[in-house]
Amino acid sequence: MLVLLKPGTPEPLANDVMTRLRMAGLAVHRTDHDGRARIAAVGDGSALDWAQVATWPGVESTQKLTRPFKLASRAFRPHDTVIQVGRCAIGGNQLAIMAGPCSVEGEAQAFTIAEAVAKAGATILRGGAYKPRTSPYAFQGLGEEGLKILRRAADAHGLAVVSEVMDSQQVPLLARYADILQIGARNMQNYTLLREVGHVRKPVMIKRGLSERIDEWLLAAEYILAHGNSNVFLCERGIRTFETYTRNTLDLNAVPVVKELSHLPVIVDPSHGTGIRDKVAPMARAAIAAGADGLMIEVHHDPDHALSDGVQSLYPKQFDELVGQIRTIAQVLGRTV
Amino acid sequence: MLVLLKPGTPEPLANDVMTRLRMAGLAVHRTDHDGRARIAAVGDGSALDWAQVATWPGVESTQKLTRPFKLASRAFRPHDTVIQVGRCAIGGNQLAIMAGPCSVEGEAQAFTIAEAVAKAGATILRGGAYKPRTSPYAFQGLGEEGLKILRRAADAHGLAVVSEVMDSQQVPLLARYADILQIGARNMQNYTLLREVGHVRKPVMIKRGLSERIDEWLLAAEYILAHGNSNVFLCERGIRTFETYTRNTLDLNAVPVVKELSHLPVIVDPSHGTGIRDKVAPMARAAIAAGADGLMIEVHHDPDHALSDGVQSLYPKQFDELVGQIRTIAQVLGRTV
Amino acid sequence: MLVLLKPGTPEPLANDVMTRLRMAGLAVHRTDHDGRARIAAVGDGSALDWAQVATWPGVESTQKLTRPFKLASRAFRPHDTVIQVGRCAIGGNQLAIMAGPCSVEGEAQAFTIAEAVAKAGATILRGGAYKPRTSPYAFQGLGEEGLKILRRAADAHGLAVVSEVMDSQQVPLLARYADILQIGARNMQNYTLLREVGHVRKPVMIKRGLSERIDEWLLAAEYILAHGNSNVFLCERGIRTFETYTRNTLDLNAVPVVKELSHLPVIVDPSHGTGIRDKVAPMARAAIAAGADGLMIEVHHDPDHALSDGVQSLYPKQFDELVGQIRTIAQVLGRTV
Amino acid sequence: MLVLLKPGTPEPLANDVMTRLRMAGLAVHRTDHDGRARIAAVGDGSALDWAQVATWPGVESTQKLTRPFKLASRAFRPHDTVIQVGRCAIGGNQLAIMAGPCSVEGEAQAFTIAEAVAKAGATILRGGAYKPRTSPYAFQGLGEEGLKILRRAADAHGLAVVSEVMDSQQVPLLARYADILQIGARNMQNYTLLREVGHVRKPVMIKRGLSERIDEWLLAAEYILAHGNSNVFLCERGIRTFETYTRNTLDLNAVPVVKELSHLPVIVDPSHGTGIRDKVAPMARAAIAAGADGLMIEVHHDPDHALSDGVQSLYPKQFDELVGQIRTIAQVLGRTV
Repeated sequence: MLVLLKPGTPEPLANDVMTRLRMAGLAVHRTDHDGRARIAAVGDGSALDWAQVATWPGVESTQKLTRPFKLASRAFRPHDTVIQVGRCAIGGNQLAIMAGPCSVEGEAQAFTIAEAVAKAGATILRGGAYKPRTSPYAFQGLGEEGLKILRRAADAHGLAVVSEVMDSQQVPLLARYADILQIGARNMQNYTLLREVGHVRKPVMIKRGLSERIDEWLLAAEYILAHGNSNVFLCERGIRTFETYTRNTLDLNAVPVVKELSHLPVIVDPSHGTGIRDKVAPMARAAIAAGADGLMIEVHHDPDHALSDGVQSLYPKQFDELVGQIRTIAQVLGRTV
Repeated sequence: MLVLLKPGTPEPLANDVMTRLRMAGLAVHRTDHDGRARIAAVGDGSALDWAQVATWPGVESTQKLTRPFKLASRAFRPHDTVIQVGRCAIGGNQLAIMAGPCSVEGEAQAFTIAEAVAKAGATILRGGAYKPRTSPYAFQGLGEEGLKILRRAADAHGLAVVSEVMDSQQVPLLARYADILQIGARNMQNYTLLREVGHVRKPVMIKRGLSERIDEWLLAAEYILAHGNSNVFLCERGIRTFETYTRNTLDLNAVPVVKELSHLPVIVDPSHGTGIRDKVAPMARAAIAAGADGLMIEVHHDPDHALSDGVQSLYPKQFDELVGQIRTIAQVLGRTV
Repeated sequence: MLVLLKPGTPEPLANDVMTRLRMAGLAVHRTDHDGRARIAAVGDGSALDWAQVATWPGVESTQKLTRPFKLASRAFRPHDTVIQVGRCAIGGNQLAIMAGPCSVEGEAQAFTIAEAVAKAGATILRGGAYKPRTSPYAFQGLGEEGLKILRRAADAHGLAVVSEVMDSQQVPLLARYADILQIGARNMQNYTLLREVGHVRKPVMIKRGLSERIDEWLLAAEYILAHGNSNVFLCERGIRTFETYTRNTLDLNAVPVVKELSHLPVIVDPSHGTGIRDKVAPMARAAIAAGADGLMIEVHHDPDHALSDGVQSLYPKQFDELVGQIRTIAQVLGRTV
Repeated sequence: MLVLLKPGTPEPLANDVMTRLRMAGLAVHRTDHDGRARIAAVGDGSALDWAQVATWPGVESTQKLTRPFKLASRAFRPHDTVIQVGRCAIGGNQLAIMAGPCSVEGEAQAFTIAEAVAKAGATILRGGAYKPRTSPYAFQGLGEEGLKILRRAADAHGLAVVSEVMDSQQVPLLARYADILQIGARNMQNYTLLREVGHVRKPVMIKRGLSERIDEWLLAAEYILAHGNSNVFLCERGIRTFETYTRNTLDLNAVPVVKELSHLPVIVDPSHGTGIRDKVAPMARAAIAAGADGLMIEVHHDPDHALSDGVQSLYPKQFDELVGQIRTIAQVLGRTV
């Protein structure tokens, strides 16, 4: 249920309302909008007489939160969530440009690419240290050593760091080095992991699962929100369909749909969404034109020798050109890079 | 096989080459590019010694056309096909904007909408007179009467007409009234129909089937090209996936993929690709940013009372605003509306 | 709406009810069940006062037919439809075994295979004379000559004939030679063709479209039923999914679902449903165990030289063994071969 | 690479071969078949001259393991893997029947159901104590208390226990109570978890992911095999497609495909594969007819009040009837229940 307080309700009164809801066994989350507090009370509310709750001091009205995802819904929070990460604000007026190699492969590689993407206009460095690979015999990432390199390369160029956390036990380690914890597509419904990142303060980016519907994706975000971490944003990276020419089918429809259903920022990863280098730029432009809050793009200075995903990585020069195009399209939507 | 002639080969010599190929039982198609003739010889060429063909007078070289779609491939025709329709050239520098109602419902409706879309910048009027409906009990279209109305409404506002042909027997009738024959998604693999529209001179737009891969879509175009009609273009309108929030999943990846594989123009229908009115404009912008050659958009002045597809139809005012946004994004790609 | 007449209502009274419904502009279809007539009145029934209809002489009650497919629903006709074809009754206690080559290739081929499948226990000979091929350059079938051969081969061995009709204009031709008209998967939503086969008396088998939901498949059947042909049955032949190891994903779930929703018989084609010879027998067994009313199986005596679908055709000996296994599984379900 | 030893190679010689391969940095796995040892050497074998390896004492020949899944392939191990669990052998002649509630809800529920399924012929009790739920607000399972109840209920009726492990940290806990560790569909690509269960000796059942291809499923098994646990079997439980009438599309094609590609047992879960109670029995029969090694079926004595998946749970009486039908179909395939 959503409990709307009257404008100007004094804090002690607002706290009373929240306490009474908690005493009824409900979890309570608050957001402020248009000068009034909005309280989501989630859990089994059957013990409460909601008509009566509407008459509590300070309460203006109550309404049902009909979507299964409560805290992620626009009904709870009508205005866009903006997440501050380093010098970038994800979901704000400025687009969030994340770029970097698929995997961290070494000091020289990471620094070279970090320098290139920073110059081109990226504000966040991506790079995997723990890699979810379909085959147990494929390169599995450099581990903590990779995280250290990634951190140093990012710091050297004023970038924030996003990197994937693959398991609930890894959360503290990742949180030590990364500014944003990435939940990969294959872990979108790893609920133990979702709960764990709900307990940290670091922003979390959830990639959409290969065959997950948009409502299930928002419910994955809801796990994190419900466990206390409100710094969550989404990343569309393509879904699995019958089409085989591209690695995945990038579902850009999801961008305006998420914007309608939720206040959470949504960015797009056209590298995994296409899997083909020369399709990345057209789909990156399309993502921004569709209203995405940012991009995550794989860039490698020597993709032919990359240890993973070389065929879908842009050359630094291509990335630089792309950011230029994005800058212009962003203006059409009243945004900046 | 592709037979490349030397630059400046005299026509009689070129004709000789084509005759000899035909005499070997092959179908012969020609395109000219960069001052030299390119001849596609399709069929069972096992009787010919291709090493010898390469020594024929006028022949520069031969090469295998490896894609299953021969005439639709860039290997056969490296430069973009541009199709002249009325005052619009589909596939050229100017984007093709097609708009109008899902179904023609009557004189007043058609004229009202034609006027609105023409004013906003459309050059082609869409409207169904024969409707493929999932249920036999749903409105099946006005038939020939609808075509007549559509033609008059288009003529009154200087627009060309695109309308769907549902069956091989209907081709002559549709060709009488429409400037472009539309093959609907459900008929994309109706090979009898594809052959039939291959025998007329009117441009043909093939919508992608709900579950057809891009190579199968290009093979559908190949049917038409192989039967003699080279004025073919494609329309991405969404594929069927597990996602249910949107009517279909608009596969914009297909736009740059078709551009790589084929010389045929490709436009996008975000109305069917989303099925939700307020998702049409974001995805129309995205389509153009991805490199589409045009748009097909459902517009209705009174969508609440439309006999079909009202929920995905734009109001004329929304369409007008959209064309304005498209105009700016088009500039980023060096194109015009 | 469904109008149930009282048991023992005299025919003139029943006819009166139907006439009054027709006069209200409704299409009227009748089935008899448990000694009482059941009348489906389809169309725009808003002009009638249905509470009043329930008081008409002879009428016991009225109820809404809630499914979009009215005549195909169990609500209209609670008991199974059984279709008599030659010495086989599709949908009855005996399973319908259809077998034969993908394409008719010649007299010797057709007779050899017809003899083999008849000996093994098939009662219906399959074979394509008009082939829907993805590529315009692939073998397109022998046409009418193929139909003649097929007919003769079937007659020589006491078999009925099923063959595909690809276009509305072909219906009379196919009806001349075949006992069952097959609507192929790619034509499942070719509504002009569906209407046309609704006007003939021959049984029609509708294959499920590659990406058609079960309700859409039943609506395709509804087109035929609504146009007057009640001898319709369904064939599950695999749907298109992300899995690429098999040609299609055979959706056997559809068998018990169709049995619940509809009274129409449903058979299964494991040849197209798997696309791999040694997967055909396991899935044929599975289909019968799931409750299918029969099988359609590709058999070829020399599959390595078949002009189409050789890799999924059984050798006659394999088919013979399969029929033996089917015979035993059928007993578990109280059926015979 | 696969290194085949000569029949009768003495163990010390065999050990020498394995040691030399390990010294080259390869991981070594051995299986014995037809009186000769087969050694899979996986990893980067480029340092070895394989032509020379073929001349090592005791070595008969070497061959490439071409599939990405090496240890899971039939090329490595030609004969079926049989896994002993309690009084049941999964993959052997006797079918493995696993049944029980979706979630353990309490002592009475678990004992009631355990008794019923044991009487009907099940040998393994299923029941979730940790539940992966799409919504954070849904019942998440009883946790360790649930495992204790499940164990007691199983022991009381001579059943083995299978239960889901959701996270790498939970492995020791689950291994304490369960005889088989279940990897759920949503965790099929949780590689940290797969590695962890590779280090225990308990049998592991991997459910197929909702959108995972068969090769990816076998690669998930490969993770476990490569980390040392060879007691792995697979469970097909339906994939996600566009069809919405059923909860999932049960891909029974996967059964004969897995049997061809791999030596690992494969069972089928028709409860999740259909999501509809009265479709479970037909699809369970079909699974066995297709060659599955067993079934996993949800049974509940009071499904209307089940805390999860009630609509797809069989009543004990239905389960009992089903086992009877399975018994007869099993005979057709030369197997027993």
